[in-house]
Amino acid sequence: KIVVDRAKELMQEAIEHELDLKSLFPLSGNSSITFHVADFGCSIGPTTFMSVQNILEAVNHKNQASTTKLPLEFQVSFNDQTNNDFNTLFRSLPAHHQGSYFAAGVPGSFYGRLFPKNSLHLGSISSSLHWISRVPGELTAAGRRDSIQCTGFHEDVARAYSGQFTRDMEAFFDARAEELVAGGLLAISALCLPPAAVLSQTRLGVVFDLVGTCLADLADLGLVSEEKLKSFYLPMYYPQAEELEASITKKGCFSIQKMVKMAPFSPEKFQTLIQTPASQIRVLLEALIKQHFKDITPQSVDFIFERLKQKLLENMDAIASPSTSPHLEVFILAKRL
Amino acid sequence: KIVVDRAKELMQEAIEHELDLKSLFPLSGNSSITFHVADFGCSIGPTTFMSVQNILEAVNHKNQASTTKLPLEFQVSFNDQTNNDFNTLFRSLPAHHQGSYFAAGVPGSFYGRLFPKNSLHLGSISSSLHWISRVPGELTAAGRRDSIQCTGFHEDVARAYSGQFTRDMEAFFDARAEELVAGGLLAISALCLPPAAVLSQTRLGVVFDLVGTCLADLADLGLVSEEKLKSFYLPMYYPQAEELEASITKKGCFSIQKMVKMAPFSPEKFQTLIQTPASQIRVLLEALIKQHFKDITPQSVDFIFERLKQKLLENMDAIASPSTSPHLEVFILAKRL
Repeated sequence: KIVVDRAKELMQEAIEHELDLKSLFPLSGNSSITFHVADFGCSIGPTTFMSVQNILEAVNHKNQASTTKLPLEFQVSFNDQTNNDFNTLFRSLPAHHQGSYFAAGVPGSFYGRLFPKNSLHLGSISSSLHWISRVPGELTAAGRRDSIQCTGFHEDVARAYSGQFTRDMEAFFDARAEELVAGGLLAISALCLPPAAVLSQTRLGVVFDLVGTCLADLADLGLVSEEKLKSFYLPMYYPQAEELEASITKKGCFSIQKMVKMAPFSPEKFQTLIQTPASQIRVLLEALIKQHFKDITPQSVDFIFERLKQKLLENMDAIASPSTSPHLEVFILAKRL
Repeated sequence: KIVVDRAKELMQEAIEHELDLKSLFPLSGNSSITFHVADFGCSIGPTTFMSVQNILEAVNHKNQASTTKLPLEFQVSFNDQTNNDFNTLFRSLPAHHQGSYFAAGVPGSFYGRLFPKNSLHLGSISSSLHWISRVPGELTAAGRRDSIQCTGFHEDVARAYSGQFTRDMEAFFDARAEELVAGGLLAISALCLPPAAVLSQTRLGVVFDLVGTCLADLADLGLVSEEKLKSFYLPMYYPQAEELEASITKKGCFSIQKMVKMAPFSPEKFQTLIQTPASQIRVLLEALIKQHFKDITPQSVDFIFERLKQKLLENMDAIASPSTSPHLEVFILAKRL
């Protein structure tokens, strides 16, 4: 929600300046035209609905202000993995969406093709690109473990993560390059590492390391195997902003029209965000943990997140300390050339 | 499944003879083209997947046989009511669909608009048009009751049902007329009444009347209120084939290119179909019953369908008797003019 609010104005400005309806629909006469928006990694709402509403308002505003108003109808596609809860998504669609847009759900990984060629006019992806498609095979094979995430401390771990991210980004932008029409826009909001920082020194990095210690406690109690613990890595990679930027322009299909690094949350705000819910972190991680530690009991899962709540409280000072850095939130508007 | 099999060849022939790809895509150069198929009232599979596969094969076949092969990609939209289980639908999408078509789920009533104007090339609706959008208000208000369905015995009941069906068909074909491109096809499979028959004399009619007696038994036991029972009507109407035909051509937006009345199942086949599952009937009716008799216990619901199983056995002779008529299965191919 907070991320959507911050991105709202940026998105409106971006559409105002960069969307060229006339060149998107050169052949339009009086017959109505479909403007197709996709939200990649939509989850179950409600932020996806707010974000989409904001986009449609901006496109409508731009169209109304133009001398030749196009008779637009909107198709909105909500994408997420096949195991996303689309039932909940569909049942929570705002009642007012009817008359405003036609809604569809599109199941599947955004690291592959999801739409026909030249069928999208605007894509949006918010806080999802850090989910890499898989934990790199090198890591699970190696079996060595001191952190469940990508730290900069071990070059081979960082290289494995970064390699997977690079391959995933290539797949993502290749797919979007086929799906977006020429002149179509792709709006990206992502958390990035601060320049030259290493993940274990970021606030979020500290939080994830605490998750690691909770899992280790569980292994010490014999409730999950050491073996399994050694091969558990988070399928997340936060790139440097420059790394993300480079992956967008690499193939020459997209230009970056706009890139804004937003002021990070204050330590206090971050503390509030992180504490409100160990539950929010639980939403992110529970499925991953269950999938990896296949026979883990519900009690053990509860144990992890109870313990985490405790550890977060104990470590709030460390998390908010000046020596840990916040992630940067980056907004990028790319245009399909 | 059986209905799909029977419709398979009809569908293939229809596409072979009636689909004019050149007139659908007059401007196509070498750039790829999206052929958009929608299945209305898809439920959760797997018949919808078989039906779609059959359609795509026929379109591909037609395209391959043509002198100017178009570079087609397929978008397939699966529509059903918002309370349909789309999660199950998405998770049972055949693995081979990737590479063959792009899949989307579209939640909402097909008695309203679901897609942008001129965005569909072929729509398919199988065994769903008899679900009217609501039980006509006159009926629930009147409170009189001797059957839970539309019988021909009471003219006012028949008039109320038929009126609702007419309004629903108008809404359905108005919406599809906007969504389908000129030259687009709509394939309809529906169960219809045999000429001049009344529903209570059909085999299915007898089955539904048995459901009514099970509900009456439940009311006699005091497990549901007489009040509630009096206002329970099935939101189903099986039209005469001519009634359906008239509703398609009424506004002049569609022509009927083909209409085939299929040989009905033999009494023996019908008996097998009906017996295999009182469970299949349960799937159809359980949600309706729960929705109407709000505080009904799970035990009472079980009671209804256990009792029904028994009554079906006892009444097999009546159901299969020559004096009850089978429904007609009708296949209609309509073209958007």
